[in-house]
Order: sequence, then structure tokens, then C-alpha cells
Amino acid sequence: MKIRHYLLLICCISFLRISAQQNLGNRQNQVVSPVIEGHNVRINVKAPYAREVLVKGDWLPQGKSAALTKGTDGIWHYRSDSIPSDLYTYQLVVDGVTMIDPANVYVLRDVGQQFSIFYIDGRKAEHYKVQAVPHGTVAYPWYSSPTLHSMRRMAVYTPPGYEDSKAAYPVLYLLHGMGGDETAWLTLGRAAQIIDNLIADKKVKPMIVVMPNGNATKKAAPGFSSDNLEAIHFESPHLMDGTFEAAFTDIQSYIEKHYRTINDKQHRAIAGLSMGGFHSLYISANNPATFDYVGLFSPAILPRTTDGGDIYGDLNAKLVALQDSGVRSYWMGIGRDDFLYKEVTDFRKRLDSLHFKYTYYESDRWHMWSNWRDYLTVFAQLLFK
Amino acid sequence: MKIRHYLLLICCISFLRISAQQNLGNRQNQVVSPVIEGHNVRINVKAPYAREVLVKGDWLPQGKSAALTKGTDGIWHYRSDSIPSDLYTYQLVVDGVTMIDPANVYVLRDVGQQFSIFYIDGRKAEHYKVQAVPHGTVAYPWYSSPTLHSMRRMAVYTPPGYEDSKAAYPVLYLLHGMGGDETAWLTLGRAAQIIDNLIADKKVKPMIVVMPNGNATKKAAPGFSSDNLEAIHFESPHLMDGTFEAAFTDIQSYIEKHYRTINDKQHRAIAGLSMGGFHSLYISANNPATFDYVGLFSPAILPRTTDGGDIYGDLNAKLVALQDSGVRSYWMGIGRDDFLYKEVTDFRKRLDSLHFKYTYYESDRWHMWSNWRDYLTVFAQLLFK
Repeated sequence: MKIRHYLLLICCISFLRISAQQNLGNRQNQVVSPVIEGHNVRINVKAPYAREVLVKGDWLPQGKSAALTKGTDGIWHYRSDSIPSDLYTYQLVVDGVTMIDPANVYVLRDVGQQFSIFYIDGRKAEHYKVQAVPHGTVAYPWYSSPTLHSMRRMAVYTPPGYEDSKAAYPVLYLLHGMGGDETAWLTLGRAAQIIDNLIADKKVKPMIVVMPNGNATKKAAPGFSSDNLEAIHFESPHLMDGTFEAAFTDIQSYIEKHYRTINDKQHRAIAGLSMGGFHSLYISANNPATFDYVGLFSPAILPRTTDGGDIYGDLNAKLVALQDSGVRSYWMGIGRDDFLYKEVTDFRKRLDSLHFKYTYYESDRWHMWSNWRDYLTVFAQLLFK
Repeated sequence: MKIRHYLLLICCISFLRISAQQNLGNRQNQVVSPVIEGHNVRINVKAPYAREVLVKGDWLPQGKSAALTKGTDGIWHYRSDSIPSDLYTYQLVVDGVTMIDPANVYVLRDVGQQFSIFYIDGRKAEHYKVQAVPHGTVAYPWYSSPTLHSMRRMAVYTPPGYEDSKAAYPVLYLLHGMGGDETAWLTLGRAAQIIDNLIADKKVKPMIVVMPNGNATKKAAPGFSSDNLEAIHFESPHLMDGTFEAAFTDIQSYIEKHYRTINDKQHRAIAGLSMGGFHSLYISANNPATFDYVGLFSPAILPRTTDGGDIYGDLNAKLVALQDSGVRSYWMGIGRDDFLYKEVTDFRKRLDSLHFKYTYYESDRWHMWSNWRDYLTVFAQLLFK
């Protein structure tokens, strides 16, 4: 009786598997891709009728693609050189059509495109992967911004144990770049994993990480506002014109009212990448009593008019006031091949002329998430100590 | 001076746009796809060297695809018949390679594949889209399951105003199907939008919605556990063998300890799709004093051995006890073409023979998200009244 039932069960599950209309399996046509072999990645694409298959990946030299080779079975193959540990993104170009890897279900959106992803194991990937350690909670609350006259979405990471504790925590405000949104640091940025793993290693103090949306005219990430499925643009109105910086205190007020935070400058940090680095520069400079830690990751320090109210005016005087207020760590990272390298060099000269103390971290490569994840890993370990 | 600075700014932003390596734009080669024209969708794919381009979409008859027509410019075209309002998913098949629409950045994962999506406006889509209404907060906490000896991830929706209120709320436990996870009801299921919109319309009471992971051996959705980027399988061990049902009280305990909930059966509901409907059936039957509302959405009521401890035994007696305890709404929905239609019909006969009162909702079509979103919209309006 039991055996008959068991056979029937197997039969039913098999039937369910075949019949369920939506949506099974991620290994199309038995092709497995990507295949990680130590520090190499192999990519395999079944495309028997294609004339040309290319891969664009961020392990390749900037702007370059590599050709796949067609096998007799209609499967195209690629094997990378040895590449360092990291999270990598790639796309395929099949006869001119750009696509994700059809055999790889794992994708992350970067601005307006989807990218397939993989890890090469090692030191960096260990920081970015989900490890068997306690995990913080990520939440997406909507906050009222009186300055922007809107309800807006943010992402908030609270560390493991937050829910069962009565303790108050320090806060890192972590800002995205142009074209990004409140999800960017959690997807390609791996912020939750980086902080989870550093907390587990006792390399950082448990902290709250707040990731707001830095586009003043956007209420939420693509798909999460009433714009629904509109086209995603790299630029939006009121970028880097002082609007977001002026509205920042609405974010801080919401967090300090709704979370158990330690509300002094020793327990607040602000950092951001590209446009978010620019935002961090001016938010900290305009609020010299607020943050003891400032991180500028490949900051887009571009010339501004003074149209942004007084946000961008009198920068030297503001930096002197920030230094005088006793900012504990003013940290800057940039890749040697970043298109903003000269702007950062010029800003360092400005800081030097003001005798402003800062930490400078120069990495390889260019304006890319590989660097920003690394900068967060390094910067987070300086905080709240 | 101001004008010069402004021109420099424009110049710099343009430079940033061109130079930023990662990653701009979602309109490849100027092709726009999909294009919504009232109740029709047009899909356009630039693939000048392809021999055949098909679209697989859930507006088509079950298991069918449709061919695109090649234009002289190398762009392939498809225009649907008039289709009803809904959220639709589709994939392209270009010379046998299945892919998302390269011009559409909006994708949702279903089990082990990515699908492009679009809306056809109208009554259903109005429920599923993000509207300009107050939004609840979605959070992903990790809870301890002593029964399963692990920390596990769940998704929790708290209604608009929860953070600024001292009120306690009713709770809907909402369970996914086989191959799904704690994210499924929030992505293809549109649960947050459906509840946001119904609350704004005063059609449902503000409620907490708890979406746990129903795979007893999985700690979290793909990519969020230390399995990282492993292949996604439709099945996992210990499915529908009583393990998840026996561990359900760990979820309820976590929620009732950490959220402001009304802890009586009048203010608890449980519902689920497919395997989650099966789970809802047995969790409610084994805990007759817990839920006043039970929703079975295309439930996978398959024959079980009694190996699941006593979870699956004595069902008739348990159903009688549930009825006697005064369950207020026992609701069942199924599509006429669902492969589980006969199982649901048999279960209705069982209920009839027990004089068990239930509501039966029969829809068109088959085992698909289109139905489950609709069932949630209907079922939610019955709750906590």
C-alpha cells in the first residue's frame, strides 16, 4: 500500500514537472555555461546557425570583446585567461544581437541592461558571496521627503541581531552613481554580503547601512515607482544641481526616527560612488558636524555652477570647517584608468593646498563596480573605531 | 561666467555618458520593444542574420509559440491579437536560442529562467502595477527555525503606515509553489502591489503579508543563500513530505514575536499556490484553531503516503475539526485547463461528502501566474471582515 502510494507520488511529481507551464530548468539544450575552472571561465553557447558569437565581459580590457569558437556540434566556446577573484558581468553578442547567456539564470541589472554574472573564487569573491554566516535584514521602506514633496523608497540594511537587540547602531549612508538607484549597492555592489561577512570576521562593527535613491526626481528604482516599466535613462532631471544634497536631511531624519541609531558624528559615515561620491563630498562639506567618516569612490567631481543654492559655493571654506570639526577619516579611491582620474587628482591638489588630511587609495582599472565593491570593503573597515 | 560653467557642465555630463564603462541604455540599435498599442503588443527584434525568430508568451495558447516576420531592415516583427489586461511574460527563440527580449530591460525570474515582461492596461493590470498610492515596506529578515535547525529567509510586507503606528495588524501567510521561493509572490505574484492598491481602494484592511520559503532544505531564494549561483532545480529534497508543514510554527512564532500582530484566528489567514496550496491545506487542517481564512490556489492536492509523521493522516477528521472550529472562509480557485483540475474536483467531492463549506472559483486557462495574481486579488478582499 505504501509502495503503491510512493510510486504514484513519484509519477505525479514527474507529471507536475513536465506539465507545469511556468517555468522549469535553466540548462537549455544541455549546454552548461558558465563553467568555472579555477581562475578561468568557460562560456558555451548553442547557436548552430550563428555567424559570429562574441562575449563582452568586465575581465576583458576596457571596451573589448572576445570571439567564441564554433564547435562541430553547433556549440560555441570561449575560455578566458586566468583572471583574478571577483564578481564578473558579461553579455553575449550573437550576430549583432546583445543578450544574456541563455544558460545562466543569474543576472543583475546595471542601469538599463541585464548582465549575466559569475564568481571567480578567492579573496575578493569571498567578501562578495553569501557565506554561511549570520545575515542582516534588507528592507525597502518609503520615507516622506518634505523637501522633495514626495514619498520615496530607500533600502536599509540592519545587521544580524538587530531585531532581537535593544542596542543602538552606527549608520553608513551609501550612495549610488548616475543611472543607479537604491538597489544598486545591493545587487552589483554586494553591500549586504560585504557587511555581513566583515561583521562575521569581526573586521567591522555591526552597523546600519542606508541606501537612498539619489535621483531627486525619481521616487524609486525602475519597476518600483508608478513609472512602472518605462525606459531607463542614464540621466534624470535635477542631477548634481544641489537638489538631492539639500534634501538629504529628510533621509537622515527618517532613519534616526525609525531605527535605533547612535545620533552623533562619531557614529555616522557617508560614502558613494561616482555621482554618489560627489554627493558625499558636498553633503559632508555642507554639514560639517554630521559625519566623522567620508568615502569618495571614483567621485564625479565635475565643475558646477553655483545654481544649486549655496550647496556648491565656498567649497574651500566648507572643507576647512569640516577639517576643523575633526572628521576622522576622509577617504578617496580611484582607478588609474578611470576617466575621472584627472578630476580626482585636481581635487587632491585642492585638499593639499588646504592642508586637509585624507587617505588616498589608487587601484587598477577604471570606472567599474569591481573597484567600488573593493573600496567599500576597505572603507568599511575604517569606520566607527 | 555662469554660461561658460553651464556649457562645461553639459560637456562633462555628455562625456560621463559616453565614457562610463558600466552600462548605459536599454534601447539597443534603436529598436524599441515591446510596444503596447491598446490591447495589442508589438515585439521587434533586430536580428538580420537569423533564419527564424519565435516568441513564446503566456498570452498564446498553452505551449504554443508565434513566428516573427522579417522586415527588409533586418528587424523582425510580431503583433499580437487583442489580449486582455494582465502582466505578461515572454521569451524569444532566435534560431533555437531562447533569450529575453534584448530591447526590454524588465525581466522577472520564474524558477530557472528569466522572462521579459509587459503590461496590457485595464482592470487586472491596474491591480498589479505600481500606482501613485501609499506603499508598504518589504523586508527580508532571517528567522531561526529550530525545527529545521537553520536560519532561513522570509519576505514580509508591512502595510503603509505600519512604521508610524502603534496598531496591531492581521496577518496573511502567503506560500509559493514548487520551484518557487520567498521572492516569487513579490515578483511575478505582484503581492505588494495588489495589497497596496486594494488598501488604497479601501477594499482590504491593512494587513501584514508573510512570504516564507517553502522548500525545507533551502535557506533562501537562489542567489541569497550560501549556495550562491548554483543551478536552480524545480524540485528540492523534502518537498511535500510533511517537513515544511511541521516547521510552519517557527515562522508564525517569529512573526508574532517581531511584528505587531493580532494573535487570534480571526486575524490570521493562510493561502498558497500549487504546492503552497497543498501546504495551506495541511497546515490549516493540522492547526484548526489557528486560521479563519484558507486559500487554495490551483492546489497540488496529490496523493501522499503518511510518511510525513501524522501531517497527512486522518484528513477527513481534521477537516471536520477545522469546520467545527468555525473557519470563516475556505476558498479554492482553479483554471479549467489546469493539469490539477481533476485533483481539485476530487477534493471538492471529499469536502462535499463531509458537508464542509467552501467557496469555489473557477477561472479560464491553466497553471499560471495570471490566475494566481487574480486569485490573490479576489481572496484578499474576503479577509478580516
